[in-house]
Amino acid sequence: MTNKEELVTNEDNEVYEKKVLTEEDIAKHIIDTLAVNDKEGFREEFFQNHSFDQAQIYLNLTVEQRCKVHDFLTPEELSEVYDIIDEEDEEQIFTFLFDMDDAYAANLLSYMYTDNAVDILNELSLDQVRIYMRLMSKESADDIKTLMNYADETAGAIMTTEFVSIKANQTVKSAMTLLRAKANSAETIYYLYVVDDDNRLVGVLSLRDLIISQGNEMIYDLMSDRIVFVDVKEDQNNVAKTIKDYDFLAIPVVEETGELIGIVTVDDIIDVIDDEAMQDYSGLAGVDVDNQYESPLKSAKSRLPWLITLLFLGMGTSTLISQFEGMIAQVAILSVFITLITGTAGNAGTQSLAVAVRRLANPDDEDQGFVSMVMREIVTGLLSGAITGIVIFAVIGFWQQNFALGLVIGIAMLAAITVANLAGSLIPLLMDRLGFDPAVASGPFITTLSDLTSVLIYFSIAAYFMPYLQ
Amino acid sequence: MTNKEELVTNEDNEVYEKKVLTEEDIAKHIIDTLAVNDKEGFREEFFQNHSFDQAQIYLNLTVEQRCKVHDFLTPEELSEVYDIIDEEDEEQIFTFLFDMDDAYAANLLSYMYTDNAVDILNELSLDQVRIYMRLMSKESADDIKTLMNYADETAGAIMTTEFVSIKANQTVKSAMTLLRAKANSAETIYYLYVVDDDNRLVGVLSLRDLIISQGNEMIYDLMSDRIVFVDVKEDQNNVAKTIKDYDFLAIPVVEETGELIGIVTVDDIIDVIDDEAMQDYSGLAGVDVDNQYESPLKSAKSRLPWLITLLFLGMGTSTLISQFEGMIAQVAILSVFITLITGTAGNAGTQSLAVAVRRLANPDDEDQGFVSMVMREIVTGLLSGAITGIVIFAVIGFWQQNFALGLVIGIAMLAAITVANLAGSLIPLLMDRLGFDPAVASGPFITTLSDLTSVLIYFSIAAYFMPYLQ
Repeated sequence: MTNKEELVTNEDNEVYEKKVLTEEDIAKHIIDTLAVNDKEGFREEFFQNHSFDQAQIYLNLTVEQRCKVHDFLTPEELSEVYDIIDEEDEEQIFTFLFDMDDAYAANLLSYMYTDNAVDILNELSLDQVRIYMRLMSKESADDIKTLMNYADETAGAIMTTEFVSIKANQTVKSAMTLLRAKANSAETIYYLYVVDDDNRLVGVLSLRDLIISQGNEMIYDLMSDRIVFVDVKEDQNNVAKTIKDYDFLAIPVVEETGELIGIVTVDDIIDVIDDEAMQDYSGLAGVDVDNQYESPLKSAKSRLPWLITLLFLGMGTSTLISQFEGMIAQVAILSVFITLITGTAGNAGTQSLAVAVRRLANPDDEDQGFVSMVMREIVTGLLSGAITGIVIFAVIGFWQQNFALGLVIGIAMLAAITVANLAGSLIPLLMDRLGFDPAVASGPFITTLSDLTSVLIYFSIAAYFMPYLQ
Repeated sequence: MTNKEELVTNEDNEVYEKKVLTEEDIAKHIIDTLAVNDKEGFREEFFQNHSFDQAQIYLNLTVEQRCKVHDFLTPEELSEVYDIIDEEDEEQIFTFLFDMDDAYAANLLSYMYTDNAVDILNELSLDQVRIYMRLMSKESADDIKTLMNYADETAGAIMTTEFVSIKANQTVKSAMTLLRAKANSAETIYYLYVVDDDNRLVGVLSLRDLIISQGNEMIYDLMSDRIVFVDVKEDQNNVAKTIKDYDFLAIPVVEETGELIGIVTVDDIIDVIDDEAMQDYSGLAGVDVDNQYESPLKSAKSRLPWLITLLFLGMGTSTLISQFEGMIAQVAILSVFITLITGTAGNAGTQSLAVAVRRLANPDDEDQGFVSMVMREIVTGLLSGAITGIVIFAVIGFWQQNFALGLVIGIAMLAAITVANLAGSLIPLLMDRLGFDPAVASGPFITTLSDLTSVLIYFSIAAYFMPYLQ
């Protein structure tokens, strides 16, 4: 719930009262104007809201109400609503296009920032996309076509083509004039990108730089020519990292030739950071946490693939234990500590996994590569394993008055934790080297795998010490 | 590695070549100027870089080189470097203050954006803070004192006090003049906040709105009076959510009285989103993934608390199993399936946990509260448990030619998964209600707890079916 206030002013425009409006009040007002077909009233009320709030109201309308909105607003006006809705809503809002006539929808799409229009078009059938493209200006259609061709999760796929570019041999005054003309269509006007005659990026300056300068100063004297930019094929994570490091509001995107073709803005980067974090989190838990607002049936359906896959891996562990059934029948106490060893090793493996996945996602300058990372995890495993092993040796020794058993469990613990740490770091590293997303290596997968290795280690050691255990 | 290019221009300022500079080249140049005490050369080279790059160079200097930089740059110039370094580096950079004389350091801190200065001061001893505060202007010291008093992770703690405020009965022209004067000290000039005589927030407009208006227009005609703002005590997550929803570059922060006291900018929000995601991720894995670039000894030390705590919880499971030792001695095959049931239930519990934690962090409008959320998880558990149970019943029935055993395992699986789902969702929900961060309920904790309940369920059911198992 966000806070919104409306000022009540007297005739001299002095504020004498503040009225707090709830979102429901505002939505009700607006829907009332639709009910009585009051176009002017609707427009007045609607435009008082920030486009995010407009979008919330629009998303909750009935089909009839929505069709009236399409009557009352121009495609350009409605495009602001479509520009601000988030990814989740984009996946449903594309159906709303079918409530408009095709020309209106095509117009709406061409007024949207290209990156957002592409997000919606990606939800449509190819036939439908073609219909809209034919109804657009060639320029808009070309921009959209270009963006649709860039690979997912690259700078090209998340950039927008609405930016302000100027020439180096312009004055501040002429740049300001250009800026004013572009202010409504550009996604950000707070950075100006300087290009040469071949449209290659040669400089950048901020609106802040511009407004503190004199009108007759030349752009080439003001612009910074040490430009930070990203290649159009750059992974979106690296684009996010650069924007985050430099505290940029936008970053220019260039072709291999140096030609400036778009910008990525900070609001899109926030979505990238959010998405990536969610993917990592989902991966670690072995469940897509983003699609869990649905019915239990759908939730179960999304969770079962991992559960059943791991069930069969777990069957491997059971098969392994069954090889030692004879031993267990002789020394039943051995079975008491199976879960203790598998559980602790699983916990350690999950820790290693999380650290490895994060380190791969955010490589540090000091990282010394594959072998050293795995070695570090093994040593960490040996250290934590040794301490855990000593603790459990003492506890079991005194509790069961059986130091041979304590020794078996302690050594098994040390070995199982070390192997779990090795697996927890090695598996995501290998996946990364093979070109897969290491975040897919889930915690449940590592714990289940570590069950298998832990059991093998445990019973092998127990078999060796069997004479002392009976 | 970011891309940087330097333009080589001819006398007519036409670009004829681009030279790609590596970060090493640039750093080497700059360090060379320090070596020969070339102040002018240093300043020329240094200022050609973006402040983030300046910071990278500065952070890697020796003490001697750093002291020269403090000679060559004014506190105001150096403050830009200190403003851009990220949280991680803040934790080490505060020691650099001791290489400056106190007056220089105090000056540097007062030129920094207040939120960043506070981050660094929070690393210092109280005595040291007092020394610096006494050397600052009263205004800077007061701003800093105020910010230091706000609770961690609230809007007050992350806001900055450097914003541009104007009056409603100003013209566009006079607002532009004010803006130019403030352009260097304000953290963002892209939003202007309109306040009344009591400094209460009454309107907002963007620099975009301003520059497309005529000089003689009045601010009250242009400003939006439906203002989106946050309370100074608001949780930083909600601030982040609002900025993200509205695609804002900054949001105003107000006191209960309506007085405007600061702004939170989008770059700080990116850090908040990053931090929170990292905390959730760390919580799920039971390890602080952020502090893992250290020696194995430190890593082991940071991971052992969870491992040892859970080891003792695991001992509970072992104690429980030991109660059934007699049963296992009679039907050793029972021990074969312990890990299968505990493992699968643990996996299901981890999934539930992750979903519950995310849902608590990002509540949806459609969430129907406590009971319905837990009920939904139980039903999801029953469904996944039933399917997993049937699969395992069939597999064990045919594999072991023992359908009684299959039935025991199948029923135990159904019950154990349902209970694990219940625990996985109930525990974070309870923690949230009790005012704790639900993300602290780690995956390892849930799996270890679920081991205990699964074993209890398994052996209770097995005891009931004992006559058919022997």
